[in-house]
Amino acid sequence: MLELRLVQGSLLKKVLESIKDLVNDANFDCSSSGFSLQAMDSSHVALVALLLRSEGFEHYRCDRNISMGMNLGNMSKMLKCAGNDDIITIKADDGSDTVTFMFESPTQDKISDFEMKLMDIDSEHLGIPEAEYQSIVTMPSAEFARICKDLSGIGDTVVISVTKEGVKFSTRGDIGTANIVCRQNTTVDKPEEATVINMSEPVSLTFALRYMNSFTKATTLSNTVTISLSSELPVVVEYKIAEMGYIRFYLAPKIEEDDEGETKPEV
Amino acid sequence: MLELRLVQGSLLKKVLESIKDLVNDANFDCSSSGFSLQAMDSSHVALVALLLRSEGFEHYRCDRNISMGMNLGNMSKMLKCAGNDDIITIKADDGSDTVTFMFESPTQDKISDFEMKLMDIDSEHLGIPEAEYQSIVTMPSAEFARICKDLSGIGDTVVISVTKEGVKFSTRGDIGTANIVCRQNTTVDKPEEATVINMSEPVSLTFALRYMNSFTKATTLSNTVTISLSSELPVVVEYKIAEMGYIRFYLAPKIEEDDEGETKPEV
Amino acid sequence: MLELRLVQGSLLKKVLESIKDLVNDANFDCSSSGFSLQAMDSSHVALVALLLRSEGFEHYRCDRNISMGMNLGNMSKMLKCAGNDDIITIKADDGSDTVTFMFESPTQDKISDFEMKLMDIDSEHLGIPEAEYQSIVTMPSAEFARICKDLSGIGDTVVISVTKEGVKFSTRGDIGTANIVCRQNTTVDKPEEATVINMSEPVSLTFALRYMNSFTKATTLSNTVTISLSSELPVVVEYKIAEMGYIRFYLAPKIEEDDEGETKPEV
Repeated sequence: MLELRLVQGSLLKKVLESIKDLVNDANFDCSSSGFSLQAMDSSHVALVALLLRSEGFEHYRCDRNISMGMNLGNMSKMLKCAGNDDIITIKADDGSDTVTFMFESPTQDKISDFEMKLMDIDSEHLGIPEAEYQSIVTMPSAEFARICKDLSGIGDTVVISVTKEGVKFSTRGDIGTANIVCRQNTTVDKPEEATVINMSEPVSLTFALRYMNSFTKATTLSNTVTISLSSELPVVVEYKIAEMGYIRFYLAPKIEEDDEGETKPEV
Repeated sequence: MLELRLVQGSLLKKVLESIKDLVNDANFDCSSSGFSLQAMDSSHVALVALLLRSEGFEHYRCDRNISMGMNLGNMSKMLKCAGNDDIITIKADDGSDTVTFMFESPTQDKISDFEMKLMDIDSEHLGIPEAEYQSIVTMPSAEFARICKDLSGIGDTVVISVTKEGVKFSTRGDIGTANIVCRQNTTVDKPEEATVINMSEPVSLTFALRYMNSFTKATTLSNTVTISLSSELPVVVEYKIAEMGYIRFYLAPKIEEDDEGETKPEV
Repeated sequence: MLELRLVQGSLLKKVLESIKDLVNDANFDCSSSGFSLQAMDSSHVALVALLLRSEGFEHYRCDRNISMGMNLGNMSKMLKCAGNDDIITIKADDGSDTVTFMFESPTQDKISDFEMKLMDIDSEHLGIPEAEYQSIVTMPSAEFARICKDLSGIGDTVVISVTKEGVKFSTRGDIGTANIVCRQNTTVDKPEEATVINMSEPVSLTFALRYMNSFTKATTLSNTVTISLSSELPVVVEYKIAEMGYIRFYLAPKIEEDDEGETKPEV
């Protein structure tokens, strides 16, 4: 028996909107510690990891660990029917092949039950080792989203270069080149407007803008984003979810593109 | 000679937006009592009835009953050119094959005349008998529109079931099932937020969501909608138009679908 | 060496949005007096003339006159990456085949450099003689834009007729005819809401609505528009740009259409 009651139901709506275009089908894993998901995107390039800790739910009952395979497009269609102020409860009976999403309006005048069929999905849970990163940038999530969108009008890849002074985002394409520098800045009115660089070593890595733009759909979940970079590791783009968890996107750097951008002689 | 001056011209704009996708061509009937329309939708399944009583016009002159055939798409194109605060006057000379829409801006600085050709349209006026309905639901029109839209993401038909406690909207489709219950609720801050059930007998009827969604285009005309249901009759979905009339949509229940939804054994 | 620093960078963004659909490639001419452009639209029917006077820039350095050929679509893509509050600096080295747009956020925390390749564009600068116009209409730019848009739902051309009392915009199409009269009105709360007619002689001229609608993309640049008309001359549709210049659109009247509209006997 599973029954998870989330007062701020809009969080779950936003989570689905953040990942449904990246991942088609995925197993949601439910244990006593929380509700989580780990999935590769459909082209097996990027990895998404979601965690909603049990403490974040008003009521959390999960008698035994279960894994529920869901089509995220269909799940999103159902969650879109929840109002932004609705309480959402996820329910499943032991051994059932369906999951029920219950939406309660704040006044309790409107109660909706949406029942969705579960799927069998083969997936192996990847162990993601804890790592030390050479550079960690925390910045306003809307700013990061704007930069990825702007650069994708010029080129296909972004070089992210971190120094003590700031982080530079660069691209080049047929119509020209672009460099955007965000300086470290901690003297701001609101903490979420700060740009903070934690750097042990400067890094410069190249990524496909298509994926970065996809990750920024999670911008609605958090005012800030944290980008962790190391030359030998996939970048981690993390959005915190209120007090209860996070959504993390992992993407390997493009080796060739980086070389090309860095060492190709000017013609 | 016809001359109908409507101070709140936006009402006529909204009426056209409500019905132009449902009905292509229709006769507007003008008599001393009011300006009205009755028309089947283009697939001859739903019926629209509009009434704007003469008392609602600032000036109303209709020397003799006339019926003016109009293409609603073209009429809508012209009314879209009226500002939302404009006064609209409908004018036609006796025997003329055109109608003129005059728009006056509130300051009288901008005066527009749009002249449209009339059409000959065969149509017989159906007598719609007054009927007693088993269940009459009045609810916020935006809520009803939201429910029809949400359910059409899941299935093609909606079962509307009324009991003393409330009204249930259900659907089923390939991805699962949905049930939305709105409870009777009269203790609200504003009267238009109430959900009121007037029931002599419980009913459960099935309708095509496509038409319901089309009817909800009239949501801009009124904060509330009234849904009148009887097992042997078409449903009536009514939106009041200010103090001056109404727009009513009639749709026959789907017999087969209802049976299927109600009695099909679970597999 | 060229370096032009424009504090209100959004003006340049709006200029590009105003003309990029009308003109594909154009030479921007830079001299000590200002930054200007003159170009025919791609079908060689309308002419655009832009002037941004040097006094309007915070810093203006132009060592020698140069003409820089740019693709306006690409330039617009780059300028879209500037924030609305950003300071924009246009930079070019002598003899360089590129131009650089630098965007500085108001807080100086984000600095962007966009470098674009220049093009060789053949163009001859047309001398536009100063002329006396028979009728000059100044009116709210949003009203003019609304009228052009509304009429293009009915017909393809607009007849603009000016008398002492006001200006009339007329069209006719398959579904009917439309006449919109704006009366002279100088008793308004705000000067930019006035409609002012300066007339030495009444005029009535016909223009293609397609071009008029294109010109009204400059509506964001100014609250008012000035339309200068003479029977033997192209109309001038002018939008002032803050204190620093203007954008002017020139379009020749349609001779045949005018005749047809004016003298064709009613059938």
